[in-house]
Amino acid sequence: MNKQPRIRIADTAGFCFGVKRAVKLANEAPHKYPGQQISTLGPIIHNPQVVTQLSALGVKPTDLNHVPEPGVVIIRSHGITRELAQELKQRPDLTLIDATCPFVRRAQEIVAEMSSAGYQVIIIGEPDHPEVAGLISYGDPQNTQVVTSLADIPADFFTERKSSRIALLAQTTQSQQLYNEIASALLAVKGELRCFNTICTATSNRQSEAIQLAEACDCMLIIGGRNSANTNRLYELSKERLPDSYHIETLADLHPEWFSGKQAIGISAGASTPQWLIDEVVEQLQYILKN
Amino acid sequence: MNKQPRIRIADTAGFCFGVKRAVKLANEAPHKYPGQQISTLGPIIHNPQVVTQLSALGVKPTDLNHVPEPGVVIIRSHGITRELAQELKQRPDLTLIDATCPFVRRAQEIVAEMSSAGYQVIIIGEPDHPEVAGLISYGDPQNTQVVTSLADIPADFFTERKSSRIALLAQTTQSQQLYNEIASALLAVKGELRCFNTICTATSNRQSEAIQLAEACDCMLIIGGRNSANTNRLYELSKERLPDSYHIETLADLHPEWFSGKQAIGISAGASTPQWLIDEVVEQLQYILKN
Repeated sequence: MNKQPRIRIADTAGFCFGVKRAVKLANEAPHKYPGQQISTLGPIIHNPQVVTQLSALGVKPTDLNHVPEPGVVIIRSHGITRELAQELKQRPDLTLIDATCPFVRRAQEIVAEMSSAGYQVIIIGEPDHPEVAGLISYGDPQNTQVVTSLADIPADFFTERKSSRIALLAQTTQSQQLYNEIASALLAVKGELRCFNTICTATSNRQSEAIQLAEACDCMLIIGGRNSANTNRLYELSKERLPDSYHIETLADLHPEWFSGKQAIGISAGASTPQWLIDEVVEQLQYILKN
Repeated sequence: MNKQPRIRIADTAGFCFGVKRAVKLANEAPHKYPGQQISTLGPIIHNPQVVTQLSALGVKPTDLNHVPEPGVVIIRSHGITRELAQELKQRPDLTLIDATCPFVRRAQEIVAEMSSAGYQVIIIGEPDHPEVAGLISYGDPQNTQVVTSLADIPADFFTERKSSRIALLAQTTQSQQLYNEIASALLAVKGELRCFNTICTATSNRQSEAIQLAEACDCMLIIGGRNSANTNRLYELSKERLPDSYHIETLADLHPEWFSGKQAIGISAGASTPQWLIDEVVEQLQYILKN
């Protein structure tokens, strides 16, 4: 008789700290503000199942021009611009729940402090991303800029200037490699270079742990949307190390024959995969393995 | 008839800004404080001819235990420790002339500010060098350290710690390459890395200009002591590009046949070569070329 295989769930599977916190705040809001209209400024997360579930509780995505007043509005984990935050605070009939990720909030504070202290502030990030739109709004346009690559750094940064002071930070989801590349180049600048490593390690930690699991198990499940870039990347990293790796969206995708004769089944999930979806898969897997 | 060759003297030949300033202050001291005993804490520069010349004016090197009082004492360009500066200031019969290089002074201030602000201060430098002894004295021993290479950085800097704040600077004569190497490695540390590029560009600028001259002239003279490491390096860089490069110590080393048929004669000099020695060589060279 075969011994039942062990199930190993990655600690880093699914939501990062900031998203987990935002979804928790959204779920708690109807209990905290009963009878009030509650909305989120845009979908709280790019996962339709989570948005549908919250809508059923009365927490609905909206846009700035349609915020129900009186009511409660939730700011998403990647934050908003300083101007918008000020505007919302001034509306007398609106209660704000700030679910801005604390790591993003810290980056906003760095931009504000460094810009007002007269540093040339460089933010590595995607100019169109809401997090970056929020970050740059905290700086003076005269000394704050977003760059996507080394080529975006103005050439005059590298000509010798007296007492140049540069502050460097990054959108929390940028790659450490790009950050290092730009920071290293800026070391050539005379004066002071103040590097704030604001990159969140959630993604890289999730990938590292998935790799470790794939190397330690003989079957691997990666849970997440087929259109989720970070889930696909997790699956690729696992598949490279363990051919018996499977990308599934829900428990319906599980095939009992995958687990025949296996010793250890590893599980990880993309950044937008909610915990309850992971839990459902684990429960179904336990049922399959017992039968 | 041959046209007389052009003489091109490097702007960066000889003393750097800080040494030039210190020697000037030492030369002015006997006029500013007539009749007083004037000493320098150690030789003002590692050039016996300059020290001898100053001694003749009454400015003599001494050590801490033999400073004549009442009198005037000159602090050399690479500075002294905070404790020693405080002690000297407290002596009622002593007048201090602070010839600390302003770039070194700035580095001392950075160590003091960063250490008292709670940063982990890392100074790249030679632990036994007087400039470095001065620099480290401005920091709290609990959070200030000198490293000579990446291997000296404590391993626990690279383990994830909350809100680590590191300030990095270098002895003014360190190589940019080593600074970049250590700074790049520290970028992996979570938190804030504050890089102060305190490296003086005098040496690298002097080398770059010597190379440019060697490539533009058909004869090159490098003036400086045979035992001066930086002079020898200048000579090597020139010789690699122009075989008709000559290393001389004084005007006595000039050979008229070197200049026969030349169009342009370039001149540079090591960091400890005084201006009057360069002037003497140029004058003698002009005499040779005319005859």
